[in-house]
Amino acid sequence: MDQNKFSEFNTIFYPRSVAVAGASKDRMKMGSFFLSSLIGSDYEGQVYPVNSDGNQVLGMKSYRRIRDIPGSVDYVIVSVPAISVLQLLEDCAAKGVKTVHIFTAGFRESGTAEGRKLEREIVKRAREGGFHIIGPNSLGICNSSSSFIPLGLPMEGTGPVAILAQSGSVTARSAKRGLARGIQFSKVVSYGNGSDLDSTDFLEYFAEDPDTGIIGMYIEGINDGQRLFCLLRDICKSKPVVVWKGGKTGDGAEVALSHTGSLAVTGVVWNALSKQVGMIEVDNIEEFVDALLTLYCLGEFLGDRMGILCGLLGGGGGEGVSATDLCTSNGLKVSRFSESTREKLTAVLPAAGRIFRNPLDFGTPVENLEILRKALDAVAADPGVDLIIFHYPVDELCTGPFGGWAQDINNYLLRLKREQPKPVVVISTPGLPPAPEQWALESELNAARIPVYPNMQRAARAIAGVSRYFKLRELNENQ
Amino acid sequence: MDQNKFSEFNTIFYPRSVAVAGASKDRMKMGSFFLSSLIGSDYEGQVYPVNSDGNQVLGMKSYRRIRDIPGSVDYVIVSVPAISVLQLLEDCAAKGVKTVHIFTAGFRESGTAEGRKLEREIVKRAREGGFHIIGPNSLGICNSSSSFIPLGLPMEGTGPVAILAQSGSVTARSAKRGLARGIQFSKVVSYGNGSDLDSTDFLEYFAEDPDTGIIGMYIEGINDGQRLFCLLRDICKSKPVVVWKGGKTGDGAEVALSHTGSLAVTGVVWNALSKQVGMIEVDNIEEFVDALLTLYCLGEFLGDRMGILCGLLGGGGGEGVSATDLCTSNGLKVSRFSESTREKLTAVLPAAGRIFRNPLDFGTPVENLEILRKALDAVAADPGVDLIIFHYPVDELCTGPFGGWAQDINNYLLRLKREQPKPVVVISTPGLPPAPEQWALESELNAARIPVYPNMQRAARAIAGVSRYFKLRELNENQ
Repeated sequence: MDQNKFSEFNTIFYPRSVAVAGASKDRMKMGSFFLSSLIGSDYEGQVYPVNSDGNQVLGMKSYRRIRDIPGSVDYVIVSVPAISVLQLLEDCAAKGVKTVHIFTAGFRESGTAEGRKLEREIVKRAREGGFHIIGPNSLGICNSSSSFIPLGLPMEGTGPVAILAQSGSVTARSAKRGLARGIQFSKVVSYGNGSDLDSTDFLEYFAEDPDTGIIGMYIEGINDGQRLFCLLRDICKSKPVVVWKGGKTGDGAEVALSHTGSLAVTGVVWNALSKQVGMIEVDNIEEFVDALLTLYCLGEFLGDRMGILCGLLGGGGGEGVSATDLCTSNGLKVSRFSESTREKLTAVLPAAGRIFRNPLDFGTPVENLEILRKALDAVAADPGVDLIIFHYPVDELCTGPFGGWAQDINNYLLRLKREQPKPVVVISTPGLPPAPEQWALESELNAARIPVYPNMQRAARAIAGVSRYFKLRELNENQ
Repeated sequence: MDQNKFSEFNTIFYPRSVAVAGASKDRMKMGSFFLSSLIGSDYEGQVYPVNSDGNQVLGMKSYRRIRDIPGSVDYVIVSVPAISVLQLLEDCAAKGVKTVHIFTAGFRESGTAEGRKLEREIVKRAREGGFHIIGPNSLGICNSSSSFIPLGLPMEGTGPVAILAQSGSVTARSAKRGLARGIQFSKVVSYGNGSDLDSTDFLEYFAEDPDTGIIGMYIEGINDGQRLFCLLRDICKSKPVVVWKGGKTGDGAEVALSHTGSLAVTGVVWNALSKQVGMIEVDNIEEFVDALLTLYCLGEFLGDRMGILCGLLGGGGGEGVSATDLCTSNGLKVSRFSESTREKLTAVLPAAGRIFRNPLDFGTPVENLEILRKALDAVAADPGVDLIIFHYPVDELCTGPFGGWAQDINNYLLRLKREQPKPVVVISTPGLPPAPEQWALESELNAARIPVYPNMQRAARAIAGVSRYFKLRELNENQ
């Protein structure tokens, strides 16, 4: 991306003033949602409601037309009926607007000749009017470092993860779940039909964007496959990209056609190409967020040898067998502990019912937490261990007779994470029913970059994906 | 299983009196846990604490030795050090005990010559003494229809699902999670090292047991592979068996050796054999419970054509694409709705942003719930739909501005389930943080046999497994 285009994109992500067309007193309307999100955030630019009836909105003066706004307008959010969009774009051109985000649907994705024509028309207006379009049929963008967050997402901090998704629901849901699990985002983009700015444009920008170090991408259709794959291959050399491809199956592709009007590439073609690119592939929203969380917490993780502890409250045997199966079948290693580690473990733990192999199974409930602390230290110090997985029964420990233990254990884990270089991850099975205490403990760990997964299968898949990515990257660098 | 052996097993599952050896004042000891569970349940037989110091336990008179107990004793739970077990078994023989459940570990699974010898010894005592052993290194059994539940599980009702697991933790955890999701159990068995009564013995019994219609099995090692596979093949002709094989990978098998002393069959051999048997295979505890819940709720489900609704609060497009991909890649079908269904849907829903293909994407938030009710009815009535999947945003609906809607929607679903024959299932993503209101709504659905899954991937895999099982069974019946 040349310097001019990069500056152009910075204009998009750092607007100095925003108009929201279609914001009204009806708070259920999306226009009102965009407006109230902007007002409720720390965004420091000017915000103007635009509404055909000219009434006040959320206590703010509103304008009947974009042209009527007194100051300059960099960015316009459009949530008006499709039929009114062309007129509005003419106003945008006249006003010297730089970027128009069109939330409105009813374009190419409608499957009608009319919708396709309307989409061609808006792109033409954008070219003539010298502005860019995000969408239509999209939720638009957020930028944490300019506090430009019209989507009501609690993006209070800034961080390295960017989301780029064709689907608005995937954008919003994955960002929300990521935030709830402690991920900090740089930018979030929903590009919908991608009529003007498409996935490849935003990817090019993220490749250069110094605030973005990790990219999560949901894509249904591809307009320019060759450009996309070349771009992904280049970016993957320096920034990991997690890609979830919607519409891989024939039926899924048909649905994608009505969703974002995309002719999707199906699984066989996609898989053949994606192998060469070096991206991290996922298949559903859980895997998507897990992979981003893992990259966010683990950083450049090259290892693949897991050190596992389980059975703190007894009965970890099955858990240990299953953990080994799930790690191994995902390509991770669970090797025996070193002789020295086994000696250390034998010294702190009585033998009956315990398994000193890796995974370490405490077997019967530990009598005091000093045992756990020593065992964690011993496993972390093992030269054959790259990452520590602690199967932590938070659901059983956060309330009831062991209630007091959970905070102590959290403190051990936070210390372990701080005082030695190997990543620590936690498996915490959701309690049924869920307890707020469990959530608080998990949040504390996530905030300290100790990622928490609800089960071993999801942890193993995410860690394996990240480990494979960095290994492949190292291999390519050394060639 | 001949009539004699069946009666013998009924004696095991319906003991008239139980002694717990190793119950003490220390409530953290497992002996005390077994005892307090029995006392806290509706079990109507005699219960005797046995303790070497002869002190009162939980306010009950205790006995120093089994022989000292005045009445007859059918069943003994053993939670004493391994070194004391042989002596105790002699007492059991003298007392005419029928079944001895040994919780104590430190036998074959310890990997020592001593441990193996001790295990051979206990089996010899059992043969000579005329009693059976469950274990050692096992959590033992529960039977809901005799309220014999020494594991503290809330098995208040009775139902068709039996669990048979080599691992105690898998037994307890899968039963707990199953109960929390509304499954009713007939019997629950943890057989540990299986020194005397092994998986095949219990399987034979479950095949005949009129209270058991669905079997969930976790197995690490196999003593007699041929017998197990023949048995599974026979049972699968009339009762579905969900099998989770621990130690499928080479490393997992090594861990299994130290867990239950089992020489596990690895993946290749297992997979080759299991295909011929017709069982439902799963690979982790989530899939295990999901499959049992699905069988429990759906009954004999032969269809594979899904009718999916999503996007009730907007943004269901990505969800629809992903749902289709996940169903299709698991072998389920998501076909177009019939012309008549599409007409019905078009009549109740405005077109913009909506997708009338299957999955039905509401696209923008529905204005009133009457729309949802009509859409559900239309999809359920479609002749090309065998099962209705409702992607229900309970997390977003149970509190906040839509708070009032959730109970109404639950009521629609309960009515739909009651008034038409097709199964209804719900995808409800766990809220982050979780809300107790969500749990209450989900529990109401589960209790009405509308299974709730936390994501589409897990639902698709479980439904596909059940559908394949019944289809295969029908195919075999017609041959």
